[in-house]
Amino acid sequence: MKVTLGAKNCLYPTPSTLVGANIHGKPNYITVAHVGIMNQVYISLSIAKRRYTNAGILENQTFSVNIPSVGMVEKTDYCGLVSGKDIDKAKLFETFYGKLETAPMIKECPVNMECRLIQTIDFQERNIFIGEIVETYSDDECLTEDVVDLSKVQPILFVMINRSYWKLGQQFAKAWSIGKNVKSPD
Amino acid sequence: MKVTLGAKNCLYPTPSTLVGANIHGKPNYITVAHVGIMNQVYISLSIAKRRYTNAGILENQTFSVNIPSVGMVEKTDYCGLVSGKDIDKAKLFETFYGKLETAPMIKECPVNMECRLIQTIDFQERNIFIGEIVETYSDDECLTEDVVDLSKVQPILFVMINRSYWKLGQQFAKAWSIGKNVKSPD
Repeated sequence: MKVTLGAKNCLYPTPSTLVGANIHGKPNYITVAHVGIMNQVYISLSIAKRRYTNAGILENQTFSVNIPSVGMVEKTDYCGLVSGKDIDKAKLFETFYGKLETAPMIKECPVNMECRLIQTIDFQERNIFIGEIVETYSDDECLTEDVVDLSKVQPILFVMINRSYWKLGQQFAKAWSIGKNVKSPD
Repeated sequence: MKVTLGAKNCLYPTPSTLVGANIHGKPNYITVAHVGIMNQVYISLSIAKRRYTNAGILENQTFSVNIPSVGMVEKTDYCGLVSGKDIDKAKLFETFYGKLETAPMIKECPVNMECRLIQTIDFQERNIFIGEIVETYSDDECLTEDVVDLSKVQPILFVMINRSYWKLGQQFAKAWSIGKNVKSPD
C-alpha cells in the first residue's frame, strides 16, 4: 500500500565528498554530499552561502572534489561539523596541487577531481557551483584495467533521510545491456 | 601512487530513477541517473534535449521521479534504451497520478516523488530540470518508524565509469555524529 509522506527527498544515496578550495591562499576542505551530475564532464555542488568555502571558490574560480574511502569516515564527517573559520582542517590531510594550481586536493583520498568553476547559481540560501572537471587523479591501486574501480575506492555513501553513511554493495548488472532482455510491450 | 586519467567523472554511484511525464496526455517513463540534489526539497535531472520526455516536462511543468528496486533492473535499463516516440513504455507498469494530476508515477516503484518544474537550465546538449518535490509516496513495507528505509527500497545504483548497476551496501556510521571522535587539529 502507498502512503504519503509530504515532500521528502529520497534521491539517495549520494557520494560523500571533501571539497577543497584555497581561502586567502590557504587550503580548506568541507564535506559535501549534495552533489549532482550535469554530464560526463560537468558536476554541481550545493553549499550553503554561510559556509567559509564559498569565498574561496568564488575568489579562485577553482575547487577540487575528493572522494574519501570508508576508512576516512570520521574525518569526512568532521569536515562538515566544523568551520574553516575556526579550525585549520588542512592539518588533517596531506595536500597536493595540480594543473590549476589553486585547487587543493587530498592525497589520502583515492580519487580527486580538479575543477574549474564555470557557473554559480544563486539558489535561495545556497550557492550551486557548476564545475568542469579538468583533471582526475587516482591512486593506482584503485584502478582495474586503467579505469577507476569503485569496489576498490570504497566511497562513503550519504543518506540524508536518516542521517547515515552506507557502503557500496555489489555490482550486479551491466547498464545499456541488461534491458535488452525486455520484450517490447507494443 | 597517484596517476592522472584526464577529465574523468568519478562522482558515482547515483540512484537510478525512472522519470515520468505526460506527453500529449499519455504517460511516458525514461531512465535518468544523472541527477542532483540542491537542498532537501529541490532536485535536478539532466536529460539530453533530443529525448522525447523533454516536451512533456515543459508542457505540463510537472514530472515524477520514481525509485525502482534491484528486481526492476531489466525494465529500468530498458526505459533508457528505447524512446517513447517508438514504444509505449507505460505498458510495462501500472501508472497512478497524485495531487499535480499530470505527473504519472509507477506503482511498482517503492518510492515516488511528485515534482513541480521550477527552472530549466539550457546546458549545452542537455536540459537541466530543477524540480520542487511536492509529495512523496512510499510503499508502507519500505518504511522503518515512518521513514523511508533504503535497505528495504533496495535502489539500483548507477556507475557510469564502467556502465554498471550496483546494490547499496550496509549502513555503517551516523552522519553529523561520528566526526565528533576527531580531535581538533589546532
